Amino acid sequence: MSKLDVKKVVVAYSGGLDTSVIIPWLKENYGCEVVAFVADVGQDAHELVGIEEKAIASGASECYVVDLKDELVKDYIYPTLKTGAYYEGKYLLGTSMARPVIAKAQVEIARKVGADALAHGCTGKGNDQVRFEGAFAALAPDLKVIAPWREWDLVSREQCLDYLAARNIPCAASLTKIYSRDANAWHISTEGGVLESTWNAPNDDCWVWTTDPEKAPNEPEYVTLQVEKGEVVGVDGKKLSPYQALVVLNEKGAKHGVGRIDIVENRLVGMKSRGCYETPGGTIMMEALRSVEQLVLDKASFEFRQELGIKASHLVYDGRWFTPLCKSVMAAAQSLADDVNGEVVIKLYKGQATATQKRSPNSLYSEEFATFGADEVYDQSHAGGFIRLYSLASRIRSLNAAKK
Amino acid sequence: MSKLDVKKVVVAYSGGLDTSVIIPWLKENYGCEVVAFVADVGQDAHELVGIEEKAIASGASECYVVDLKDELVKDYIYPTLKTGAYYEGKYLLGTSMARPVIAKAQVEIARKVGADALAHGCTGKGNDQVRFEGAFAALAPDLKVIAPWREWDLVSREQCLDYLAARNIPCAASLTKIYSRDANAWHISTEGGVLESTWNAPNDDCWVWTTDPEKAPNEPEYVTLQVEKGEVVGVDGKKLSPYQALVVLNEKGAKHGVGRIDIVENRLVGMKSRGCYETPGGTIMMEALRSVEQLVLDKASFEFRQELGIKASHLVYDGRWFTPLCKSVMAAAQSLADDVNGEVVIKLYKGQATATQKRSPNSLYSEEFATFGADEVYDQSHAGGFIRLYSLASRIRSLNAAKK
Amino acid sequence: MSKLDVKKVVVAYSGGLDTSVIIPWLKENYGCEVVAFVADVGQDAHELVGIEEKAIASGASECYVVDLKDELVKDYIYPTLKTGAYYEGKYLLGTSMARPVIAKAQVEIARKVGADALAHGCTGKGNDQVRFEGAFAALAPDLKVIAPWREWDLVSREQCLDYLAARNIPCAASLTKIYSRDANAWHISTEGGVLESTWNAPNDDCWVWTTDPEKAPNEPEYVTLQVEKGEVVGVDGKKLSPYQALVVLNEKGAKHGVGRIDIVENRLVGMKSRGCYETPGGTIMMEALRSVEQLVLDKASFEFRQELGIKASHLVYDGRWFTPLCKSVMAAAQSLADDVNGEVVIKLYKGQATATQKRSPNSLYSEEFATFGADEVYDQSHAGGFIRLYSLASRIRSLNAAKK
Amino acid sequence: MSKLDVKKVVVAYSGGLDTSVIIPWLKENYGCEVVAFVADVGQDAHELVGIEEKAIASGASECYVVDLKDELVKDYIYPTLKTGAYYEGKYLLGTSMARPVIAKAQVEIARKVGADALAHGCTGKGNDQVRFEGAFAALAPDLKVIAPWREWDLVSREQCLDYLAARNIPCAASLTKIYSRDANAWHISTEGGVLESTWNAPNDDCWVWTTDPEKAPNEPEYVTLQVEKGEVVGVDGKKLSPYQALVVLNEKGAKHGVGRIDIVENRLVGMKSRGCYETPGGTIMMEALRSVEQLVLDKASFEFRQELGIKASHLVYDGRWFTPLCKSVMAAAQSLADDVNGEVVIKLYKGQATATQKRSPNSLYSEEFATFGADEVYDQSHAGGFIRLYSLASRIRSLNAAKK
Repeated sequence: MSKLDVKKVVVAYSGGLDTSVIIPWLKENYGCEVVAFVADVGQDAHELVGIEEKAIASGASECYVVDLKDELVKDYIYPTLKTGAYYEGKYLLGTSMARPVIAKAQVEIARKVGADALAHGCTGKGNDQVRFEGAFAALAPDLKVIAPWREWDLVSREQCLDYLAARNIPCAASLTKIYSRDANAWHISTEGGVLESTWNAPNDDCWVWTTDPEKAPNEPEYVTLQVEKGEVVGVDGKKLSPYQALVVLNEKGAKHGVGRIDIVENRLVGMKSRGCYETPGGTIMMEALRSVEQLVLDKASFEFRQELGIKASHLVYDGRWFTPLCKSVMAAAQSLADDVNGEVVIKLYKGQATATQKRSPNSLYSEEFATFGADEVYDQSHAGGFIRLYSLASRIRSLNAAKK
Repeated sequence: MSKLDVKKVVVAYSGGLDTSVIIPWLKENYGCEVVAFVADVGQDAHELVGIEEKAIASGASECYVVDLKDELVKDYIYPTLKTGAYYEGKYLLGTSMARPVIAKAQVEIARKVGADALAHGCTGKGNDQVRFEGAFAALAPDLKVIAPWREWDLVSREQCLDYLAARNIPCAASLTKIYSRDANAWHISTEGGVLESTWNAPNDDCWVWTTDPEKAPNEPEYVTLQVEKGEVVGVDGKKLSPYQALVVLNEKGAKHGVGRIDIVENRLVGMKSRGCYETPGGTIMMEALRSVEQLVLDKASFEFRQELGIKASHLVYDGRWFTPLCKSVMAAAQSLADDVNGEVVIKLYKGQATATQKRSPNSLYSEEFATFGADEVYDQSHAGGFIRLYSLASRIRSLNAAKK
Repeated sequence: MSKLDVKKVVVAYSGGLDTSVIIPWLKENYGCEVVAFVADVGQDAHELVGIEEKAIASGASECYVVDLKDELVKDYIYPTLKTGAYYEGKYLLGTSMARPVIAKAQVEIARKVGADALAHGCTGKGNDQVRFEGAFAALAPDLKVIAPWREWDLVSREQCLDYLAARNIPCAASLTKIYSRDANAWHISTEGGVLESTWNAPNDDCWVWTTDPEKAPNEPEYVTLQVEKGEVVGVDGKKLSPYQALVVLNEKGAKHGVGRIDIVENRLVGMKSRGCYETPGGTIMMEALRSVEQLVLDKASFEFRQELGIKASHLVYDGRWFTPLCKSVMAAAQSLADDVNGEVVIKLYKGQATATQKRSPNSLYSEEFATFGADEVYDQSHAGGFIRLYSLASRIRSLNAAKK
Repeated sequence: MSKLDVKKVVVAYSGGLDTSVIIPWLKENYGCEVVAFVADVGQDAHELVGIEEKAIASGASECYVVDLKDELVKDYIYPTLKTGAYYEGKYLLGTSMARPVIAKAQVEIARKVGADALAHGCTGKGNDQVRFEGAFAALAPDLKVIAPWREWDLVSREQCLDYLAARNIPCAASLTKIYSRDANAWHISTEGGVLESTWNAPNDDCWVWTTDPEKAPNEPEYVTLQVEKGEVVGVDGKKLSPYQALVVLNEKGAKHGVGRIDIVENRLVGMKSRGCYETPGGTIMMEALRSVEQLVLDKASFEFRQELGIKASHLVYDGRWFTPLCKSVMAAAQSLADDVNGEVVIKLYKGQATATQKRSPNSLYSEEFATFGADEVYDQSHAGGFIRLYSLASRIRSLNAAKK
């Protein structure tokens, strides 16, 4: 494949070793101007300190830092939560949900600066390349896409550091890095190192945000979440924006070791990977939302919501955010969420977030029905007819068999 | 509805207050012989002590006690576990899975004693009446079915006790009973009392089998499960039958407070109910099986297994065990389970069962792929083509839109 | 069950034998005032001639005739069509879709006249009782419901005629009626008579609206449909309302014998029934909508639309229109339909409606791609990488197996 | 990508222009021995005449012709039919089902002759490359794969003919070929030419096997199919093997213009294509199988079968035959098919195959139920209870709303 003709490229820049190499590499290999774009999605704040200077020092002509934290939680995470999506039954999609909001903002910067190309620092083995490029295809099919990791022949941190040193580009990155990590307002993921064998248990240093459940407080703590239309709108009675609610719950959850998972998952690109994810606030939110649903959704609606959750988990994981199918699934979930209003008390204790109390103005649960006495709405004699018809096909089938 | 003409009825007898009343009631109201049938599915052993004498004293002509523990675990629970079924995302179907094995054995006793009717002690508000009668419809559509709770006008424990007293039938049952419970080898459920308001947290006395996580050992314990074809076949290296494995794991799990859930669920008969369930060993088994699946199932297979789990959860909950659909779903799950072989270490700690180590001879996880270096099977340059085609429809759609 | 206390009831009145009996029967058995409600949903117009007089003559205090034709097609049929629902793969849900619009209007009349009860003339064996009462439960749970067919002991037409004669109520109904029929703007259904054995082919007189394909014109006819957002908005270039479009297409389709089906279906109440349905215009509309979807929906969206179609077919058939689940499924389908714009030419010939030409401004089909030459968007070399990753899990699995 | 090191390659050889070029091209470009493999899957018999000589003349060292007709129909088509799969609602998967049986036999030849590579003549734009290579990955991950169309720079028939002429390899292929076709025992497909615009109707010459419905006999013909366990086992009372049954029904169907479809479909590789498919016998078989299912499958089973059909349609279309997921879906379908026994009369007339009579020993349809009189199994009064419980959640929800 011959090199593309590129004049100005916007690169998703993190300030880390990889993307620091990408800036000079793009300039040298494509002879183009490079604009750095930094998405503030709630990653470790010190990563953003001095990042503009770093980008310029690496050769970028400009550097844009865009605060996407509110948008990420409000427009990407909250809609996904309504579907109840856990990828492969466990993963709360922290990295997956951040990619489309970053890619969208990156395209907007590209339009603003008149760029003709987009670049990202994802490797050729992972999901993120698909998520970025899937978003680019949907939002800016006219822009060229450069994925340096699939092109260059740098295959070690040492080579990357040498590359920068040879060009006198300062870089504080260390030669060795045990784990590969990704963090945003919602979660932090950890891969590599000891985790590379599935027969190894995670080490203590695999976990970053959350207290080890064994070292978490011996006393449980209770937190109350207010839920409206499938969204957490308040904590302990205080109205909060989605991002604020997440920050508060992250702190509470992390203290009690809530939200750790250790999973081997199927990547979209056909291989399996193993990761440790910490999603303390998100785990609390999911428990709260699912608990209100227990009160509100009828049997068939609950089942459909579960099916939507599976579908959404794949769409979001697979980088399908900006597709008609994802929009359709989200529309269905939003419709079901219209009734999901209420309040839930969550107990936090040594790694667990457990709903202990729940109520809703839309609750279909009725204390009267639950008791043994007579009531007006439910007449036990109805059950006989119900069962008879409900089992009719079984009965006929069995009578048939007997006749033979 | 006029009374059925019945000569001999087999009643599912538990030795409790309800079914003790049912025996004389059936005799008086149907003028028939009553045979008691007791299913030993692993409920509290002292419930079975002297149960035959009790049945005879209540007026039964005969009493059969049948040990169904092995059959329950092997033929009902294990197949269901392969589907990954959690009803409404949480409930491990303990009561649901026991009903078909009981009903089947009850029908066999009816055939053996030449009965023309079957009776059960389920109330008219619950799921169990549907599960029993659904099984009866499939297995013995020619036998009549009597559901005394839907017929008689006894509506309190006091009335039931008076009924027995008036007939000089001895009964040790107490006048008040706070909770309604059901237990078998797999689980114990608790309903009623404080749980009747969803805004009440469960009391300590809502939990029977499991240690309160707050009082569980401060030291974690590790247990290793051997898995073959989707079934737990050994614990800590010792080969065990399904029932034996369950007994061992129940003990370990209960000690660490594992397997408690508190759920508001949709009953099949259209109302919601709230229950606390304890499934210590089952929770460990599920964690182990799902963990091996993480290694073994590809992305699309994993998704289908999740869908099968949702379907199976409804079929089993709804009393559809003996239907062609249930058989079909189980066949699909068994097929996927053929590769589910391996070993998992589970950490038990204060209410949680967490897989920390897992391996499988069928694992699709490859350490080589997970690292950053080059490898033979996966060529990063392939990803470019993959993404291009994977996103092609998005690209075309977007280019279309731009044209307009 | 003791009789309900009813003061004023609104009965869904058709002018036929059954509902003519129901009016005096309700008055005699419930001692209440009876208001007749007639839904004009496009059934045979002569059924409506003089219907108000007939109702009054039968004893109704008032009679309301409400024109629901536009609402039926616009608000019930069109949304359902977007889902692509065919019940059990064949049935276009003609009767099912009409029930909720009728029930809703009936409730509105009940509110208007201050009635405290609703009645319908559906038998106890069919789906319609569930559809009516399901709608009543959702829209007016406070109103009592009377289903005379489940209460009275009239079991033949002769008994019904005698009942009317004894009360001097005039009725033109004949003593024998071979078939049971239901018609509205969308379809006509025929059950009974020769159809009662599935081993009988339908007779000529089983079909009412459509020409026998064998007697249909020997020359095909072509009709062009304009489609916007998943709705037929014009025919042969002429803008038409949903109902008008249906009328035009019914005429064309009927002439060519289009839209006959003969199906054995599963009723909701557990038994199977056999019916012949004629849906000439609807069949043409479905062919047109599905054809535009072929151009517009990507692979995964098309599959989801098919799944929504199955779900919707059951929800609509089962009388679940006014449920949160139905609303959610419709929201998903509407979202996908947003792109379904275009134009389709349908060939009508001897029972078939076949799309021969189709185009759409949103078409993802590209002539360039379809040809063998080189092109810009699709690079054949991409396919190698795609396949490699797409098959990666298969490859690893197989390599694993070889190692053993 | 550097050329692979190949010693002996087995190429799927058709005798057509493309694969005739591939033989010398492989020898020249890979310096390897080339073995030709011809799959007899029921394509036009004259294509096989003298094919071994042709292969040798083109440079193959050996040529194996393997008769796969019985295996194709018995082991690939029949299992798929049980799922009811129509790709995107229409396409009967003719080409898709043939690829795995061919690939499997090709791998067997490769093992037999000790080859280290496999080659096919599929283009880089189609599905077949994925199907072949997907099968190779599952069956022979150790063998190298060569896809000449993705490598060479021949882009026209003229260039291909020149290539052969320059090497004195005889070839009877014409310079121009309007349509691209694929045929086997099940179907023939036609792409290209006039079909490249979706706004063009197919020309007469787009159809090969089937009579134009307008020219088909004016008299309908009736054919009776015997069905056992979801398989057509006889026609008009004569027991036939799967392949024999297909041959007989192809002839009858083709005569009456049955089995034409014209579809725009989503290829797996992200683009849309348009094709005309003729599947006369298959269309009759599908109508027969679905008709027996109407009698035999209960409501929930029928719905699951429909879902399996959608899933299977994608798996088979996408080249996923040799995957655990496909095996699982087939296991589920086979389980449901166990009851699908019976007999169906199909009317063939001017393009249509319509079941007019059907019966089954497992039929759940009961004439008694269908009539209006009283019966033993179904008591109309049961319906009241059924509806009450069936609508309970709706009722509670609505009562809730009224309270607010």
